[in-house]
Amino acid sequence: MRDVSIIGAGQVTVGELWDQSLKQLAYRAIRAALDDARAEKVDMLYVSNMLAGTASEQAHLGALVADFAGLHGVEAVKIEAACASGGAALRQGYLAAAGGLADFVMVCGVEKMTDHRPNAVVAGLAMAADADYEVIQGLTFAGINALMMRRYMYEYNLKHDAFAPFAVNAHRNAATNPYAMFPEPVTTAQYTRARMITPPINLLDSSPICDGAAAVLLCPTDIARDYHPAPVRIKASASATDTLAVHSRRNPTWLAAAESSARQCYAQAGVGPDDIDFFELHDAFVIMSALSLEAAGFAARGEGTRLALAGEIFREGRIPICTMGGLKARGHPVGATGVYQAAEATLQLRGQAGENQIPGARLGMIQNIGGSGATIVAHILEAS
Amino acid sequence: MRDVSIIGAGQVTVGELWDQSLKQLAYRAIRAALDDARAEKVDMLYVSNMLAGTASEQAHLGALVADFAGLHGVEAVKIEAACASGGAALRQGYLAAAGGLADFVMVCGVEKMTDHRPNAVVAGLAMAADADYEVIQGLTFAGINALMMRRYMYEYNLKHDAFAPFAVNAHRNAATNPYAMFPEPVTTAQYTRARMITPPINLLDSSPICDGAAAVLLCPTDIARDYHPAPVRIKASASATDTLAVHSRRNPTWLAAAESSARQCYAQAGVGPDDIDFFELHDAFVIMSALSLEAAGFAARGEGTRLALAGEIFREGRIPICTMGGLKARGHPVGATGVYQAAEATLQLRGQAGENQIPGARLGMIQNIGGSGATIVAHILEAS
Repeated sequence: MRDVSIIGAGQVTVGELWDQSLKQLAYRAIRAALDDARAEKVDMLYVSNMLAGTASEQAHLGALVADFAGLHGVEAVKIEAACASGGAALRQGYLAAAGGLADFVMVCGVEKMTDHRPNAVVAGLAMAADADYEVIQGLTFAGINALMMRRYMYEYNLKHDAFAPFAVNAHRNAATNPYAMFPEPVTTAQYTRARMITPPINLLDSSPICDGAAAVLLCPTDIARDYHPAPVRIKASASATDTLAVHSRRNPTWLAAAESSARQCYAQAGVGPDDIDFFELHDAFVIMSALSLEAAGFAARGEGTRLALAGEIFREGRIPICTMGGLKARGHPVGATGVYQAAEATLQLRGQAGENQIPGARLGMIQNIGGSGATIVAHILEAS
Repeated sequence: MRDVSIIGAGQVTVGELWDQSLKQLAYRAIRAALDDARAEKVDMLYVSNMLAGTASEQAHLGALVADFAGLHGVEAVKIEAACASGGAALRQGYLAAAGGLADFVMVCGVEKMTDHRPNAVVAGLAMAADADYEVIQGLTFAGINALMMRRYMYEYNLKHDAFAPFAVNAHRNAATNPYAMFPEPVTTAQYTRARMITPPINLLDSSPICDGAAAVLLCPTDIARDYHPAPVRIKASASATDTLAVHSRRNPTWLAAAESSARQCYAQAGVGPDDIDFFELHDAFVIMSALSLEAAGFAARGEGTRLALAGEIFREGRIPICTMGGLKARGHPVGATGVYQAAEATLQLRGQAGENQIPGARLGMIQNIGGSGATIVAHILEAS
C-alpha cells in the first residue's frame, strides 16, 4: 500500500443554505479543495451523503457531482454509512489511492437538510437506526441518544450539568471558526437552562440540522509536495461496526466499534492515546463525546465527563476535542461531517487553524460515527 | 495490486418477496456465497442498494447487514450509484482486496422494491436521473428511456419490432434459470402486442419491479483454490461517468461511459471484444441492450438491433447476452443487479450454468448501468 496525504481541503460555511442546492454546495467544496492544493487533476471522486434521497429526492450523487463540478467522465460513487458517511468515504478514497488505483482522489461530503418535505429529516435521521427493531417503536434518533445518556447518568451517578463542558468547549471553538454555523460562545448557565428536546437531552446537548459540504484531495505522499508545501499524511485508517440496535449490545454505554477502530489506528500508526495532540470526535449529542473519549482510550470507563470538567478537552488541555466547534457548533450536515473533520484536522496540522490552533500539533485523530455507534470510522493524520 | 478472484456466489430467486425483509434477503445471499466458497471468514463487507431509504425507511445498510448476517464487528459500508450500485460495490470490493487491505471481501447487493408507500418506487427510481433538470419536468425513468429509444428509432430508421430479439432472448434464458423472476419464454408476437407503458416502451421492453439479493465472496487469487476448486478471476475492472441529464450529452444515443469503461477493461485484460465469450449487459429497457452492444464494441454504431435480429445475441450466437435472463427476465432488483451479474458470470465460467451454459466460456464481460448511462461499471471475469 502506498503512503497517502491530504494536499487540499475545502469547506463551505455550515448553515441553513436555502439558496444553494446539493450540487452547488458540493461544487464549492471541491473547487476550494482544488484551489487549496493548486491542483486541477481528479482521477476518482467519492461523494458521501446520507439524506439526499429523502430530503432532495436525488440519488446517484457520484455522477451528479462529477458532472456539475466539471469532472466530466471521472469515475465517481456515493458512500453511505449514515452519519459516518464522510469518514467512510475518506477511508474508501484512502484505499483507492493507497492501493495504487488512482493518484488524485477527491473525497467530497455534502448534505442538505433544510429543504425537505415535513418531517423528512427527523424520519431520515432515524434511518440510521434499526427500522424493524427501534424506529418502529416510535424512537427518534434523539430519543435513542437520550436513552443512552440517561443510562450513562444512572450507571455513573451523574447529573445533567456534568456534560456542560462539552457544549461550552464546542461553542467556544466555533466562535473563531469562519466555517462554523454557531460562532457564539455559550455559558454553563445557558446550557443548564436550554430548552428540553427529549429528556435528558436539551437543545445545547444536540447538534443542529443544517446544510454543508467539505472536500479533501488525496494523492500519494511521494508527490504531495509538488502540490502543497505542507501535506498532511494519513497515518492510519480503520473502520468497525457494532449492532445497529442499541439494545442488542452487551453494554449500551460502551462504543465497541470506537474501541476497535481506535485500537486498529494506534497499531497501524505505532502510537497510543498519549501521542495524540487533538481529537475531532463525533459530538452529535454530548453523550457521544463522553463515550468516545472512553472508548478511544483518552479517559477511563465512566470518566469521560470528569476529563471534561477538569478542562482537559479545551484547547489548553491534555486532549483538545472539537477544536473547530465540532458537530455541536460548527454544525452536523450529517453525510458531510466526516469530511469536515478531515479538513479541520488538515488546518490544525498545517498550523493554519488561526485562533483555534493547538500549538505544535503533530498528530490528530478524527472519528466519525454512524447511528448510535453502529459504524465508527477513525483516522490518524500527521503533520509533514 | 494483488490478483483477485471470486470464490463464492449466492443468489436469492428474484420475485415479489413480501414475506422477507431487506436484512433477511441479504443474509440468505451472503450465507449462500459462504457455503459455495466453503469459507467462513469475512474481513470486509460492501452492501449495494439504491432504494432502502425511500422504500424501507432504512439507511445504514452496511452495519445493518453485518449485524444480521452474523458478521459482528466487521467493517461494512454501503455503496450507491443508482442501478449501478451492485457493479460499483463489486469494484470497491475488488479494490479493497487488490490493494491488500482485506483478504476476504463480501459484496452483497440487496433491493426490496415491493414494500413501499404509494409511488415510492417510481419516485425512487427517478432519483437516478437529475432531480433539478429532468425529474422536475415530470419525467419518469421509463420516460427518459422512451425518449432515448424514440430518438434511436428515428436516427436509424427502425420499427419497434426490431427490438423483439432482446426480450425473446432474455425470457428464453430465464426459463431455465432457477433464480429468475419470469422463467417463461415469450414470442415475438407476444412482444409486439404487449401493453404500452410509455411509447414506444411496452411491458416487454421493460424490466420488472422486484426484490432480490445476491452476493459474491472475493479473495486473493493465490489462496483462492484453498476454498473453491474453480475460482473466477477478476481480470479487469473499470468505471466511468457521463452527464446525469441525457439532454446534456453530445449524443443522446451513445453511451460514452460504456465505451470508456469497456475500453479500460479491454486494455487492462489485454483483450478485445472478439475475445469475450458472453456479455451480461444492463437491459433495464431494450434500448439499453442496443446501446451497450454498440458502446462496448460488439456492434457498429446503429447496428445493435441488427446484431440481435441476426441471432448473434442468443446462446448459440457470436456474443450471447443476458445468458441467465438479464434484467428483463431474471429481474432487476436495482441495487442488487450488478452482483447478480457477477454471480451469473461466475456460474458460466465454472461451467455450472446448466442448460444456459455457453460452451467453453473463458471470458465474460459484465456491465452495470446507473441512470440512463451516467454511471457505468464494467468487469471482465476469467475462468481458472
